[in-house]
Amino acid sequence: MFELPFTLPSIHAAYQQGTCPEAIVEEVFRRIDVVADPGIFIHLFDKTEVLEAAKALGAYDPDKPLWGIPFVIKDNIDAAGKPTTAGCPAYEYHADEDAFVVKRLRDAGALLIGKTNLDQFATGLVGVRSPFQPPKNSVDPKMVPGGSSSGSAVAVGHGIVSFSLGTDTAGSGRVPGALNNIVGLKPTLGALSATGVVPACRTLDTISIFALTVDDAYSAYQVAAAFDAGDAYSRDIAAPELPPLPGKLKIGIPDTGSIEFFGDELQARSFYDTVDLLKQQGAEIVEVDFTPFYDVAHMLYEGAWVAERHTVIEELMRDQPEAVHPTTVKVVSAALKLSATDAFRGFYRLKELARKTEPVLASLDMLCVPTMPTFYSVADLEADPIGPNSRNGTYTNFVNLLDMCGLAVPVAPRSDGRPGSVTLLAAAGKDWAVAALGRKLEQLGSHTLGATGWSLPEPVTSLPGAAPGELAIAVCG
Amino acid sequence: MFELPFTLPSIHAAYQQGTCPEAIVEEVFRRIDVVADPGIFIHLFDKTEVLEAAKALGAYDPDKPLWGIPFVIKDNIDAAGKPTTAGCPAYEYHADEDAFVVKRLRDAGALLIGKTNLDQFATGLVGVRSPFQPPKNSVDPKMVPGGSSSGSAVAVGHGIVSFSLGTDTAGSGRVPGALNNIVGLKPTLGALSATGVVPACRTLDTISIFALTVDDAYSAYQVAAAFDAGDAYSRDIAAPELPPLPGKLKIGIPDTGSIEFFGDELQARSFYDTVDLLKQQGAEIVEVDFTPFYDVAHMLYEGAWVAERHTVIEELMRDQPEAVHPTTVKVVSAALKLSATDAFRGFYRLKELARKTEPVLASLDMLCVPTMPTFYSVADLEADPIGPNSRNGTYTNFVNLLDMCGLAVPVAPRSDGRPGSVTLLAAAGKDWAVAALGRKLEQLGSHTLGATGWSLPEPVTSLPGAAPGELAIAVCG
Repeated sequence: MFELPFTLPSIHAAYQQGTCPEAIVEEVFRRIDVVADPGIFIHLFDKTEVLEAAKALGAYDPDKPLWGIPFVIKDNIDAAGKPTTAGCPAYEYHADEDAFVVKRLRDAGALLIGKTNLDQFATGLVGVRSPFQPPKNSVDPKMVPGGSSSGSAVAVGHGIVSFSLGTDTAGSGRVPGALNNIVGLKPTLGALSATGVVPACRTLDTISIFALTVDDAYSAYQVAAAFDAGDAYSRDIAAPELPPLPGKLKIGIPDTGSIEFFGDELQARSFYDTVDLLKQQGAEIVEVDFTPFYDVAHMLYEGAWVAERHTVIEELMRDQPEAVHPTTVKVVSAALKLSATDAFRGFYRLKELARKTEPVLASLDMLCVPTMPTFYSVADLEADPIGPNSRNGTYTNFVNLLDMCGLAVPVAPRSDGRPGSVTLLAAAGKDWAVAALGRKLEQLGSHTLGATGWSLPEPVTSLPGAAPGELAIAVCG
Repeated sequence: MFELPFTLPSIHAAYQQGTCPEAIVEEVFRRIDVVADPGIFIHLFDKTEVLEAAKALGAYDPDKPLWGIPFVIKDNIDAAGKPTTAGCPAYEYHADEDAFVVKRLRDAGALLIGKTNLDQFATGLVGVRSPFQPPKNSVDPKMVPGGSSSGSAVAVGHGIVSFSLGTDTAGSGRVPGALNNIVGLKPTLGALSATGVVPACRTLDTISIFALTVDDAYSAYQVAAAFDAGDAYSRDIAAPELPPLPGKLKIGIPDTGSIEFFGDELQARSFYDTVDLLKQQGAEIVEVDFTPFYDVAHMLYEGAWVAERHTVIEELMRDQPEAVHPTTVKVVSAALKLSATDAFRGFYRLKELARKTEPVLASLDMLCVPTMPTFYSVADLEADPIGPNSRNGTYTNFVNLLDMCGLAVPVAPRSDGRPGSVTLLAAAGKDWAVAALGRKLEQLGSHTLGATGWSLPEPVTSLPGAAPGELAIAVCG
């Protein structure tokens, strides 16, 4: 079982050899049954419905780059005719239309399988803050799955689908990637339209993309990215083909005085191994004092921006407080004490901190950071629902406040077998740059994909063929 | 008296013919005595001190474009060794250093004469909201002088100095220009550093420049504009030499359904006369529905941004409420009811409105609007301190919220003799464009300068000579 890797090259090769999309859909649902984690989906679509969508694709269309590619979306993103809950049953509404990005993906041939679990209202980095049964980490069920895009990351980690949509305000599209040994692409703010997405912090949100490989994540990103006049925060961000890497990159890392692993020496070793790889590739490594970045990070929950979350659930918290997850209530209630005057003081402070980081960033091509400083288990979160979650955001919380793009990319596993992951960060609009270097890093990393045991596909120029009998039998047409 | 026009070309010509800067300083103080309006200055410097500064200039230095040019600054801008009050004695502090912009102007040879009256904390467009005796309108003492940069505009209107600094958040650098028949240049946000300036709304403030002519205002602007790493809101904005006008400009004006003169037919006639002049110059005039611009304008005082003013005077309003002008208290107290949640809702609304105006602005080179819809007298403001002030902001309040630059420029007087004025508005960074068209318009307008009776100088290439005996006698060196 699970023989056919659900990478894009592998599925494309299967289609070229006569496999029909209905067969892929059957395989998706078989895998869902085998994985048997009821926490992944909030709304798994009926197989019949997805088979019909597969049939409706008609003949293979080379102009549709995601033709017959299965995907899932976080349940704070609309799919036409389905409910959206944002992880809160009392918030549920019926979506009449696909979210702008979902429509683009489906128009490009992708097959939507269902809507996934999340930290309620996308508030969290752990994946256990949901009134629905949380999904299990695909790599090690004792560990948290990561959040807030938990179900979307776990589904890709298991190879159930080729890619998935999450959202990312504070790291929700990166931390779960690291925890499930997959790629998490967090685009520049505004590159992917927010039309049809439940906001967390509307000024800081983006849809994000999980996939087994950088190429797959970037392929979905290229389809998804487009200016949307209907979203006031949409921006026209380039999504070009990935260029070869320039000769010598200048890459910043946290300096020894400011890097933080909370005592996890294996995580430190894994990170510095990756730094060595970058050096071997000719990169110049520059140590950077991360204090101003951490100062920015602290503003996300301690500063005014928590009031953005409050704009979304103010009525619910007031009228049906019991309907909101207790940790979400605790986090968002901080907004009740914040005045508009406090909010502006927060913006001034952010602007001043950003001014400190600007010359640092301008002198570098990119930053490379650990995606997370260390790992936390489900038990850790039961003991302390807030602390480990905050620490998970050490290297993610500042990114959207500073208008950077990022890519969490798997590297070689740590010596204890836990997945290795670093995040590459660059200025707004340089999504292509982090993807180009990320692709290089994953090739150097010799890891298997997610929890699947599959290897990284050969570079795209030569598509791997699928051996006969790899798929469950299905009748096409 | 007042024979020597205090335009830059005229003073430069006097210097070329042997006049010394001390003589200009004597003349400045003589004019102050003759005008005899104690409301203009909050801190008029001792003549001795300014004479010393003039002497310290040494020999004429062609590398200092403002060598020996007298100017004044609004008293919310720091001058080294002087108090800054922002129009509130209880707020007064001693400034150790010049504001960044003031230092640049003095380094270029300009002579600072004093610090001028204002609507307290730069909150107002009328100039009568000050605990100090308000200055009188230079053109007609019955009318309000305009604010908040009242003293700076009146000083230039009388020809006491060549240029002055105001600040502009909602129109404070444009409305007083129109009321005193002078030029008001409101630069792109961030072009002029805010270091050493008391904020009104820190995200929306800019220093502004009043002068008798567009060339003079733009010359001061070129000296003043520079990136300041110490101001988190500073931006690197180009200040090139003014280019010739392109052949055909596309200029938007409010359409007949949305233009507003509050019944002032002469103001309407004056505006459309200017529109006709633009047409005669080959401009294409496009009528634009101004509703979304007005919707933006209303947000400035009715929305979250009033909380920015509150950040400045929160302590004062709490601990010494009697020290704050009653109208200022009334306006700023609106912030007490605003939560951070409200603030973010305001930002979302602004972003949505801005998205509506963007395609309009992108299709045009510029907007041309009346600087004010009509005129109000001091008596009008005594009867209603808020309403006329709000109406004065009809065509100014939206500008900084939409990150545009602007220039208020005198045109031909109305048939009743009141000064004519239009404001040109363009996208951020196009300060040079509004100045280039503004210069053309003032040449076409056949008006005299401010309240002085002086004519517009000939185009800069031929400097007018000063006739002997134009200046009070002073001994140089």
